[in-house]
Amino acid sequence: MVAMTLAEIATAADAPLRGNGAVIVTGVATLQKARPDQISFLTNPRYRKFLESTQAAAVILSQADAPACKVPVLVSDKPQVTYARVAALFAPSPVACQGIHPSAWVSDQAQVAKEAWIGPHCTVEAGAVIEAGVFVGPNCVVGENAVLGAHSRLIAQVTLCHGVRLGQRVLVHPGAVIGSDGFGLADADGRWIKVPQLGSVWVGDDVEIGANTTIDRGALEDTVLEEGVKLDNQIQVAHNVHIGAHTAVAGCVGIAGSAHIGRHCTLAGGVGIAGHLEIADHVHITGMSLVTKSIAKPGSYSSGLAVEPSRLWNKISARLRRLDDLARRLVALEAKLSTDRDA
Amino acid sequence: MVAMTLAEIATAADAPLRGNGAVIVTGVATLQKARPDQISFLTNPRYRKFLESTQAAAVILSQADAPACKVPVLVSDKPQVTYARVAALFAPSPVACQGIHPSAWVSDQAQVAKEAWIGPHCTVEAGAVIEAGVFVGPNCVVGENAVLGAHSRLIAQVTLCHGVRLGQRVLVHPGAVIGSDGFGLADADGRWIKVPQLGSVWVGDDVEIGANTTIDRGALEDTVLEEGVKLDNQIQVAHNVHIGAHTAVAGCVGIAGSAHIGRHCTLAGGVGIAGHLEIADHVHITGMSLVTKSIAKPGSYSSGLAVEPSRLWNKISARLRRLDDLARRLVALEAKLSTDRDA
Amino acid sequence: MVAMTLAEIATAADAPLRGNGAVIVTGVATLQKARPDQISFLTNPRYRKFLESTQAAAVILSQADAPACKVPVLVSDKPQVTYARVAALFAPSPVACQGIHPSAWVSDQAQVAKEAWIGPHCTVEAGAVIEAGVFVGPNCVVGENAVLGAHSRLIAQVTLCHGVRLGQRVLVHPGAVIGSDGFGLADADGRWIKVPQLGSVWVGDDVEIGANTTIDRGALEDTVLEEGVKLDNQIQVAHNVHIGAHTAVAGCVGIAGSAHIGRHCTLAGGVGIAGHLEIADHVHITGMSLVTKSIAKPGSYSSGLAVEPSRLWNKISARLRRLDDLARRLVALEAKLSTDRDA
Repeated sequence: MVAMTLAEIATAADAPLRGNGAVIVTGVATLQKARPDQISFLTNPRYRKFLESTQAAAVILSQADAPACKVPVLVSDKPQVTYARVAALFAPSPVACQGIHPSAWVSDQAQVAKEAWIGPHCTVEAGAVIEAGVFVGPNCVVGENAVLGAHSRLIAQVTLCHGVRLGQRVLVHPGAVIGSDGFGLADADGRWIKVPQLGSVWVGDDVEIGANTTIDRGALEDTVLEEGVKLDNQIQVAHNVHIGAHTAVAGCVGIAGSAHIGRHCTLAGGVGIAGHLEIADHVHITGMSLVTKSIAKPGSYSSGLAVEPSRLWNKISARLRRLDDLARRLVALEAKLSTDRDA
Repeated sequence: MVAMTLAEIATAADAPLRGNGAVIVTGVATLQKARPDQISFLTNPRYRKFLESTQAAAVILSQADAPACKVPVLVSDKPQVTYARVAALFAPSPVACQGIHPSAWVSDQAQVAKEAWIGPHCTVEAGAVIEAGVFVGPNCVVGENAVLGAHSRLIAQVTLCHGVRLGQRVLVHPGAVIGSDGFGLADADGRWIKVPQLGSVWVGDDVEIGANTTIDRGALEDTVLEEGVKLDNQIQVAHNVHIGAHTAVAGCVGIAGSAHIGRHCTLAGGVGIAGHLEIADHVHITGMSLVTKSIAKPGSYSSGLAVEPSRLWNKISARLRRLDDLARRLVALEAKLSTDRDA
Repeated sequence: MVAMTLAEIATAADAPLRGNGAVIVTGVATLQKARPDQISFLTNPRYRKFLESTQAAAVILSQADAPACKVPVLVSDKPQVTYARVAALFAPSPVACQGIHPSAWVSDQAQVAKEAWIGPHCTVEAGAVIEAGVFVGPNCVVGENAVLGAHSRLIAQVTLCHGVRLGQRVLVHPGAVIGSDGFGLADADGRWIKVPQLGSVWVGDDVEIGANTTIDRGALEDTVLEEGVKLDNQIQVAHNVHIGAHTAVAGCVGIAGSAHIGRHCTLAGGVGIAGHLEIADHVHITGMSLVTKSIAKPGSYSSGLAVEPSRLWNKISARLRRLDDLARRLVALEAKLSTDRDA
């Protein structure tokens, strides 16, 4: 168990402490649940109501929230970032194993760094390169000539197909598939002919890829995730998609082939992006929206509709089906009224 | 092969039989396909038309449908439930294996009950606890300190991450991932810092989790599925979601972080639930709807739109884009007409 | 490395060549990137602008595009099909392994053809039948009595549940699950009772199934994918769905139970299909649309809405919620105006 004083934590997180720095902290917790030896945080205004009664050793919060807090505070203009740093102090550090588990199968034509770990029941095929500090968890498959950059981690049951290249410190969660064939089909008189998928996938440094997310290999050139891209679970990234650096994509998003997403974008859950379009840097798409055309300007875009009681929604939806008619009738009324006046 | 008389089936299913109880039944089948030694059922009015010509030994149906049936009937006020019970009589019982397959790797610091089965190529890590009657199918991963309650079943290729706890009789289908890291990111001047995911997942008794469904571990506290929750395939449950008892969630649903779903709810396919909201008990959301605010009242809610021919839809959609203008023009007309009258 | 002359390629692809047939080609590439020993193609008008400056040995294109090309051309009325054939000449041929990897576990009651390959860490259970030319990649699970037709390929980490039958030349990508239990539940006074899923899955010849796609087994009869069906990644196919021959389904589509989709249909990304409905042959559904009723006529159908700037969308969406009121007010105005005139 890690134990640190508040003063040590303040120094490590580079955030000024107001209160007794000698207090011992052994972990992090929510405002509601924190014990006097745990540090807490306030990043979402929904939870401000718990500030007054918290038992936490200290609370990480913004300057504005500080006065309302009865216990010591760590003031930060980015409380979420400060919290992430503090929580990391108390998170169990990833196991630093070395070697190859006896139940793994590693081709003698693969290169595995001495300081890497290959877990139980893994398959590592010929030509694969596994650099120092890499952790390959249980039951993963590393295909021919795939490359894992230093300190990358495949948690478990991950599939890297042949030739896929991961940068350094890439983190891949269970069930993710990187480098599956793109969905390339040609219509030959009603029968589909497979278009060979000859490209690969290139994943930059510090990318994170969620559980059961799939990233297809390019048809000719590579599918690319630039450095710092973060993908949540259950995402589909089609062939030849290019995602710019530091873009974050939430769960269940689908990105169709050859879409080019800018840097520092965010795609919320369930968004769909059509193929062969360009999205500028700093574009934010809200939940369950559909993008069918390129977006040239930064900003927030939406097309999701929020629920209403079904009975009301059915009425709205029936009216919507006749919207064209309704608009025409309005035009007719306008014309009529204008004629009446002129008459 | 199981063979039972109609009388035995009626007793086992606790449903009154009208007809000859001595008839031998060896299985279940649809109304259209049933042979004279198979029992059938009518639960969906679409199939009522097949009632007259069915060759089944007997039909499970409601009182109202009974008169239209020429063969023996098992009358039930819940024919779907009665059918489920009868079909279970003829379903192959799950294999009751015991022991550890020689190709599995089980840490000597794991506890595996004598009456449990660990299948081929499984990995069971240190501290894992596997109770009596548990079945771990081929190529599963059970992480450190994970707990599988008695009679739980992982069909194949399932990943339980470290510390995840399953209750009793939990059924998990292939490719499901339970306990992957939540998507917790803090924005540090355009670069994402990972927020450590220190909670776990708690799954109640009699929960069923579909193929390739993913359930993230909590950021601090646990993600919770209460008893009797049923999840279909390809669902994403984010960190700190809480799903109340006996709620059923259909395929491709995404539930964002810290959403709290009530008991006895149903979410139809493709629904999206935003984060940090509360949904009351007995709420039903129809297909592909988006919930962005809390729902306090039981009932049915929708925001999905059904298809029209694309040509018509394109017109509707173009009008929709100008709906604000259209509404303003209506207001203007109303004002004009009112002025004209007053004049 | 494969090397062929342009004349040989033209013959193999059955497309007339205009230019020097003696030129040696060693691969395929995009118009922008092709070197003088690579062949390229023009199938999407977006890339026509690169035609003039391409360095390719030759370009596969339509008659209409031929005059604008400065390098030799292979003319085709289906350039996409011709390209697929040419690219296949240069694609690495799938490894033709034979035998069983020593780390695989194969039941002695399974039948594995001599000319088949079972990769590392695979599990093949009793009664499974694996025909000649089949390739089972690493870490796959083939359940009891499952059948893999000749020359089928499971890339890696695939799960075939018990009794599933694949035709010939079926290609299944990593993480796909075929034959998981359908989501069959009966409501017994607020508790869900499992309806046994006693059917299986039947997959026709030349079907392709994408990464992490799931196909549930039928409740009583089989879930069916007819020959030549192509499924992309992350698709959910529920129990007793029937997909007609040569239908293609893009990523993230969800198809609910007992839906019957015709032949030669296309479902674009993110589409949702409700249960128990019929879709005719040659129906095309555009991205993120929802189908809730049967479709009897061929053609294109839509209900997806494309993004607008969020500020505008919020206005539209607020107006939409009051659309019923707006329509009523229009009717009132019409009545008023008509009365005024009559007066």
